[in-house]
Formats: sequence, C-alpha cells, structure tokens
Amino acid sequence: MNILFVGDVMGRAGRRALRKFLDKIVKKHEVDLIIANGENAAGGFGITEKTAEELYEYGIDVLTMGNHTWDNKDIFNFIEYNKRIIRPLNFPKNNPGRGWITINKNNKNITVVNLIGQVYMNTHDSPYHEFMELYPAIKDSDIIIVDFHAEASGEKMAFARAVDGMVTAVIGTHTHVQTNDAQIFPKGTAYITDVGLTGAVDSIIGMKVENMVEKMKTSLPVRYEVATGAVKINSVLLEVDEINRITENISIINKNNL
Amino acid sequence: MNILFVGDVMGRAGRRALRKFLDKIVKKHEVDLIIANGENAAGGFGITEKTAEELYEYGIDVLTMGNHTWDNKDIFNFIEYNKRIIRPLNFPKNNPGRGWITINKNNKNITVVNLIGQVYMNTHDSPYHEFMELYPAIKDSDIIIVDFHAEASGEKMAFARAVDGMVTAVIGTHTHVQTNDAQIFPKGTAYITDVGLTGAVDSIIGMKVENMVEKMKTSLPVRYEVATGAVKINSVLLEVDEINRITENISIINKNNL
Amino acid sequence: MNILFVGDVMGRAGRRALRKFLDKIVKKHEVDLIIANGENAAGGFGITEKTAEELYEYGIDVLTMGNHTWDNKDIFNFIEYNKRIIRPLNFPKNNPGRGWITINKNNKNITVVNLIGQVYMNTHDSPYHEFMELYPAIKDSDIIIVDFHAEASGEKMAFARAVDGMVTAVIGTHTHVQTNDAQIFPKGTAYITDVGLTGAVDSIIGMKVENMVEKMKTSLPVRYEVATGAVKINSVLLEVDEINRITENISIINKNNL
Amino acid sequence: MNILFVGDVMGRAGRRALRKFLDKIVKKHEVDLIIANGENAAGGFGITEKTAEELYEYGIDVLTMGNHTWDNKDIFNFIEYNKRIIRPLNFPKNNPGRGWITINKNNKNITVVNLIGQVYMNTHDSPYHEFMELYPAIKDSDIIIVDFHAEASGEKMAFARAVDGMVTAVIGTHTHVQTNDAQIFPKGTAYITDVGLTGAVDSIIGMKVENMVEKMKTSLPVRYEVATGAVKINSVLLEVDEINRITENISIINKNNL
Ligand SMILES: [Fe+2]
Ligand SMILES: [Fe+2]
Ligand SMILES: [Fe+2]
Ligand SMILES: [Fe+2]
Ligand SMILES: [Fe+2]
Ligand SMILES: [Fe+2]
Ligand SMILES: [Fe+2]
Ligand SMILES: [Fe+2]
Repeated sequence: MNILFVGDVMGRAGRRALRKFLDKIVKKHEVDLIIANGENAAGGFGITEKTAEELYEYGIDVLTMGNHTWDNKDIFNFIEYNKRIIRPLNFPKNNPGRGWITINKNNKNITVVNLIGQVYMNTHDSPYHEFMELYPAIKDSDIIIVDFHAEASGEKMAFARAVDGMVTAVIGTHTHVQTNDAQIFPKGTAYITDVGLTGAVDSIIGMKVENMVEKMKTSLPVRYEVATGAVKINSVLLEVDEINRITENISIINKNNL
Repeated sequence: MNILFVGDVMGRAGRRALRKFLDKIVKKHEVDLIIANGENAAGGFGITEKTAEELYEYGIDVLTMGNHTWDNKDIFNFIEYNKRIIRPLNFPKNNPGRGWITINKNNKNITVVNLIGQVYMNTHDSPYHEFMELYPAIKDSDIIIVDFHAEASGEKMAFARAVDGMVTAVIGTHTHVQTNDAQIFPKGTAYITDVGLTGAVDSIIGMKVENMVEKMKTSLPVRYEVATGAVKINSVLLEVDEINRITENISIINKNNL
Repeated sequence: MNILFVGDVMGRAGRRALRKFLDKIVKKHEVDLIIANGENAAGGFGITEKTAEELYEYGIDVLTMGNHTWDNKDIFNFIEYNKRIIRPLNFPKNNPGRGWITINKNNKNITVVNLIGQVYMNTHDSPYHEFMELYPAIKDSDIIIVDFHAEASGEKMAFARAVDGMVTAVIGTHTHVQTNDAQIFPKGTAYITDVGLTGAVDSIIGMKVENMVEKMKTSLPVRYEVATGAVKINSVLLEVDEINRITENISIINKNNL
Repeated sequence: MNILFVGDVMGRAGRRALRKFLDKIVKKHEVDLIIANGENAAGGFGITEKTAEELYEYGIDVLTMGNHTWDNKDIFNFIEYNKRIIRPLNFPKNNPGRGWITINKNNKNITVVNLIGQVYMNTHDSPYHEFMELYPAIKDSDIIIVDFHAEASGEKMAFARAVDGMVTAVIGTHTHVQTNDAQIFPKGTAYITDVGLTGAVDSIIGMKVENMVEKMKTSLPVRYEVATGAVKINSVLLEVDEINRITENISIINKNNL
C-alpha cells in the first residue's frame, strides 16, 4: 500500500498546491491513502470546517493537527463529529476531539496517531508515555502512522527510535522546512524529521517574507499573512508491504509551479 | 572560488569523518576554503586546542561555534590568540574571542561571521542588530559567509532574507539535521536552514541512540556519549564568482562509509 | 525626597485602586514623586493615551512598561511625544519611544530607567550591558530608579547587586505578586524582587479567577478578562536623602477596600 | 494542629538555619508537623541520604523536592526505601520514588503531595490532571498539604484556586523569594505563592552573590557555590482545626541571625 504524508498545509496557497499537484502524484505513485497536517489550513492559523471539507475533496483521508489546533474557533463546532480529523493525543484528556483514528482501506486497518512534542513548545503531557498507554489498543492495526508535531530534532528522532519496530512510520511536522533525512530505522520504522511545507514558495515558513523580515528588524507586533504566488507541495511517500508488515521505502515527493 | 561549509562536527566520530572524506571532496570539487562548525568537536561539548588543531590539519580554514562554545574550559586558554576560531558575534562584548574573521585566500578577502539565534536558545543580544552594526567594517570583503547558529527555522530564514544581497551566504547550523532547502535568494544570497551533522550515522543528533531513548523514556539525567560506528559528513558547496560577486550555486555534499 | 513606586496597574480595577488610595498615601507619606508600571493599564494588555492621561491625573509622574508595551496599538500614536512614559531600554534601538527619562522635581534631577529581563521572557538584548552603556549619561542625576521588569527572581537580584551603589533603587515588576524582601543592599541601593499588583483583590494576577482556572483545567484558548470587585494597591515607598545621596528606607505600602 | 512549611533549604547554610531556629519555632508555635522542601539541601543541587537524615534530626517530618530532585545521584540509592521524602507526582510514572505520602500524627492522617509546574520549567505532565487522578485515593485524609514547585505566579495561583476547598493548603516553592500574599481562599484552602528560602542572608537565591553577578556580567559558565555567613529561615505556619476541617490561619514565620 502506498501512503502519502503531506507537510503542513499553509492557508490558501497550501490548498492551491494540493489542487494543483495532488491528483498527479496520486496517479503517478498509485497512492492509496493521504494524510496531511492541517493545523495551518485556514489563513495559517488553525482550520475551519469549510477548509477541512476542501482538503477532503482534494483526496485527503486524514487530517492531523498541532500547536495551532485551537487557533480558529470554528474547530470547536466540528471536531467532535468529524471523524477524519485528529488532534494531538497528549493534549488534556478533557479536550474536544481525539488523538488517533483507525480507518479501513483496501481491507486493511490503518491507524493514524497525532502527537505533539514537549521541547520548545507549549506545555503538554509526555508524548511517549501517552503513546505507550494507547499502544495496546492499536497494535493490531495493519499499518500505524504517527505524526509527531515538534520543534526539536532530537526529540522527534528519540521518539522514533524508542518506537522503532512498533509502528510503520514516524513523520515529523511543525518546522515548515523539509529535512534531508528520510530513512528506515533498523527495526523497520520509516522516519523523517520534518516533512516540510505545503504553501507559497516565496515565503518564510509559509508567511509573507516582508512580515517576517519586519519582525526580525523591529521585534514589534506584526500581522502575519499567508504568502501568495507560486506554490509547492512537500510530502513523503511510504511504500508499505502490509502483508509482511514491512515498510519498503520512504521517499520525498516535492512539486512546485515555479 | 569554491567554499565548503561543514555541519557541526560531533566528537571523535565527526573528526574521523573529516579524515576520511574531506580530501576527496576538496579534490573532486576544487574546494578553495573550508569552514566548519566546531562547537561539538571535543566529546560533543565544546572544543579543545588539540581538537581544533586536528581540524586545521584536515584542511579546515575557519572554525565557528555556537551554544556549546564554553562547554569545554580549554577554550579559554586559546581562543584569544587562535585567529581561526570565532564564536557568536552577539555574545556579550566582554566575552573572550571574536565574532568574525577576515582571511585572505587566492588574493580575495573572505569574511566569516558567526551569529547565534534568540529563539529557543539561551539569552543573547539581537543577531540582526549586532550584524548590522558590524556590517560597515566588513562590507568590502569579496565574500561574506554567515554561520547562523539557531534552532527555529523561521528565525534563520528571516535573518537571511533580511540580509539578502548583502552577504554571499547564510548557512544555518545547530539542529544536527540537514534540511532540504539549499537555495539562492532573489538578491543573490545562498542559504540553507541547516547544513546538518558530521558524525556517527547510527546516532541521534550525533549522540548514542540508547542515551537519547533512555532520556525519552525516563526524563531522568542521562550521560550523553558521542556515538561510534559508521560516519558521515554533511556539508554544502558554495560556488562563488568572486569577480562579479555572484553566488552561482549552493549544493549539498554528503558522504558516509555505511 | 519620598518616592512611591506602584506595581503593575491592571485595567479598570487598577485605575480605580489608584483613584481610591493614591491621594491618601501621598498625603500621609508626603510623597514627592510617583512612578507606576502601566503595561497592563488598558484592559490588562498595554496602554492607551486615554488611560495614560487618566493615570497622570491621579498624580503619577512617570509610567514604565514591560512585555505588554505594544499590546494596545494606540501606543504607537503617542509614545513618541508623550514624555512621561518609557518602555524597556533594551528593546531594539529602532523601536519607538525611549528607555529612560530625567525629570526635575524639588530642584533635583530624577532619572527613571525601564529594563526588561531575558530569562523566561521574549528575546531582548542584555539589560545589564544596555544599562552600563547608558550609565555615563545619567550618573550625575540626584536619584536613579530602575524598573526591572522580569520573571526570574535570580535575574532581578543579580542585576540589582551588579549595580548596587550606582542607583537609588531597583524595583522589580511583572509577576503581579508582591515579594516579601524589600531591603537596602550593602552599597545603598534599595531593592524589592517584585512590587506586586494594583488591581482586583479576588483575581489571579489581576485576571478573573474563572478564566485562569478554566485555562488550568483545559489548556484551551481562554479569553482573559480583568477582574472586578474590591481593589488593592501594591507599592513601595523610597525615602531618599538626596543631599547625601543615601536611600534611608524602602517600605511596603499596600491598601485595599475589602 | 499546627503545621510548619519550610522554604527550599539551601545547602549547608540552610541546614545551619534549621539547627539554629527550628526548635525555638516549634516550641513557641506548638508545631505538630514540619514539611520542608529539600531539593537544594546538598550543596544547592539535590539531596543525599546523609543530608536528608540530618534534616530529619532537626525535626522535619516530610521532605518535598522539585526540579533539582535528581541533581545528586545519591538519591537513587535511598528514595525507594526512604518513606519520608517525596518527589513531584507529575514526573513520569516509571521514575523512582513517589509523589505523595500519608503519615499519621496525633491520630490524624496527613497527606503531603508534591507537584511541579509546567510553565518555564522542564517538561512535565499536567500537575492539575495528575492531582485530580490521585485525589480519590487521598481525599479522606484529615489534612492535605500540596507543595506546588513552580516558577510562574499565575500557574501556582490558578492551581490553588482550582482545588480550593479540596485541600488544606497549597504552598508554592522554587523561586527562593518569599511572597507577601499568604491568605486563605474563599473555600478554605490556605495559600502562598512562594514560601521562600532557608539559607544564607547575603546571597542571591542562596548562592554566592559574586557568582551570580559574574554570570550577569559575562554570560559565561560560572561555578555556583552556596553562600555562607548569617542565615535565615523562611516558613509559613498553618493553623488547622482538623476536627472541623477548617484552616484557621496561615502566617509567615521568618528568623535570621543577622
Ligand atoms: Fe505548522
Ligand atoms: Fe506547528
Ligand atoms: Fe551543534
Ligand atoms: Fe548548537
Ligand atoms: Fe504586568
Ligand atoms: Fe509583564
Ligand atoms: Fe529550590
Ligand atoms: Fe526549584
């Protein structure tokens, strides 16, 4: 089974990138399932039901979130009944929504788990311990994909090595810059520190260059706007032999219309 | 002129990688000047005079540092008179050492500046404002290379866009994971968010996997040791037309002995 | 000369406390000059020209700010020409406003300096080094009062001990909780780690209890509102013998209408 | 019943303060039970079995810890079998030691719980949610005292208001500076944001002034040593009517030999 994991979709530019490139990627690489991080889908901050629906239309099966989960208040209106969007599992247990989902595709059970890091982020419970508490309930899935949404490279990699062999893949999100370390760890778990950004090419982490440069020069409050112009998609393709439970390959799939 | 910038050299494994790969890279790519980040050269924490000398022997011209600058106390014995090692410019002005150096190679003046970020790091003065204060003194150099040692992708990129056209290249260091975004910005400054790690392949940011995984599982104090085994070099090659002051290319040069 | 330093004035409740208590304190303690931290004066976040004018009417001579300086955009309209409001000196030099002021009262020159800490705050230049750079320009003032706006107790006290004997007083602000350590250091500088809060009594750091408790229980975004009800003023009185340049006393002056 | 809670005991100076003042306080105020924060008891960093035993000899019944729990490796030798020392409950569940203890005194069950904050600290699980999970097991105790070891005033106070009426007292520790806000909340829980420091008077948070000032001036690595000279004890006395389960009073008890 071929699974595509798409990096943080940044506002209108990111959604446009999906419209432009996703179909072609799906056809060319015979993609069976698409996961995307949607924490920035609505204007760069959070997600609305409307933008979520738009992303599903482009073919995305599961949306994951991160530190921007609650930025757009519309999420409180739909996260409870919309079964295809998950937020970090290690948010407080009384928060709306859920941290994992199991869907059936090609007669296989695929579980997607969303975790958020503790280093250089807001305060959260331990992603490792919450995951280990969940694990017995999901371990019989044919495929398990973790979106580990975090800042520090060491934390992402340490988690992935700690669960190496227990899950199909740990995909890092959040920095909006793709890393050059896609690999399969010794016990079979595929990994990349950060899958990157789906949004405007001429941007700083998806935002208008001028906003971010002004912030650098003044440290004054700046209104950040999602950048426009040419767009790109950053993603990774996971080729999984779900019969023998082997992840055969993780490869980078990037497109842009520069 | 061809300049090689080598990612954080991590302990004995990193030094071994340089011994194995540097000569071949220099020959194949006709490298004229080598800069390396040396903040982890001695056992992963700081640098000693002995390890600095070893790095010079392998052909490195200039060593830059970062948040680990003062980890090994030996640095206080040699940083003042060793002219080829620099530490972040935006450390306090009364700190030993200096934040930039101009060397002459092939009859050209090449200035290397070391800066450290403010986001998710210890407390430092503004790298942007310190750089702008320095700039009049270095702006007539034929080539200016900045090592921007920082955690946050947005901060590195915002600095680079703020000085686009003023310097030859801004090379990010510190995360020990190479990013997949080497590029030349609109006004000619070459850039990569993080050049990566020179050290052990089977490691977490250069450290032993078992140490980092234990930390993830227990949150207890852990003694980190530099990983061993197969090694890699992560670097970028800058091809500069120093006559017309144009950076023609930035490309990734990675080698390992897996 | 008797100087009153008033802790962070929190919204409408804080302004009401000033209206109620300030005149009586001034009469009883023969106060000659009043300084107040105004970073939360307008709805808890920043200050407007209107609220600043209201504070001047109550008798405040100088307003200092902190991390909330720019929260209310109205400040950009008046900070440049309003000479009695200062913002942290160690903000970037190109920021609007200024970090210190010298006013004349009773034929004496009184300088007030505003600094902001680096520990557990946003990123700022070193308050110590910026202060030392300023010092030659202000050192002949008869009285020098520093508002050191910071989170960490150790940072506030270390700064104060570093400048002990150079200034009349270092008054900590920001935590909104008064500390019980008002004292005069060996070389004569008066000090308190935090002067506290001027605002609602039944509050958490001036905000409605229910908002802060909800945040504790859910970690979800919460709209913070300034608390109402009975109010208090937290302040310290500095008794200065400005002829002999001796700070004779620092004492706590708190009032409430419970 | 009268309970004394003693602020962070800082090295040899702190232990000396206990030897000097504790007996007199116990006699004068008819203290029945003494709790002290011992995270800095051994040289300022952590605790050893020997220093713990010394503290018990001075009359301390229960020792609580904090972010320095594991600084001195000796703790791993005795925390499991020493029943009178507790470490933060919201450390990972697989850590040695335990987060609460119930002891019997005067035929009453007194439970002491140790929690650590999440704001401006290392990464920890939610103290609020961990406490609520524990609560059913301890709620029938006659008295419940919580040491909430945290940096941010707002976090301490928000926790205390969230559990107001459920526990006898929430006592803040960690900043090493006593706050001036000891009070009883509307539903009966006694509270102080920080009980303060038991250690050297002429110190910065218990450390030598010269070390902390040098750090402020240079930002270079500094070896911190516990300060010496005159000593003080910072503590609060809780007067509890355990029959009617009412906390009648919280008052500050400070002594020094200046
Ligand atoms: Fe994102
Ligand atoms: Fe994020
Ligand atoms: Fe490094
Ligand atoms: Fe670093
Ligand atoms: Fe404030
Ligand atoms: Fe503040
Ligand atoms: Fe402590
Ligand atoms: Fe502590």
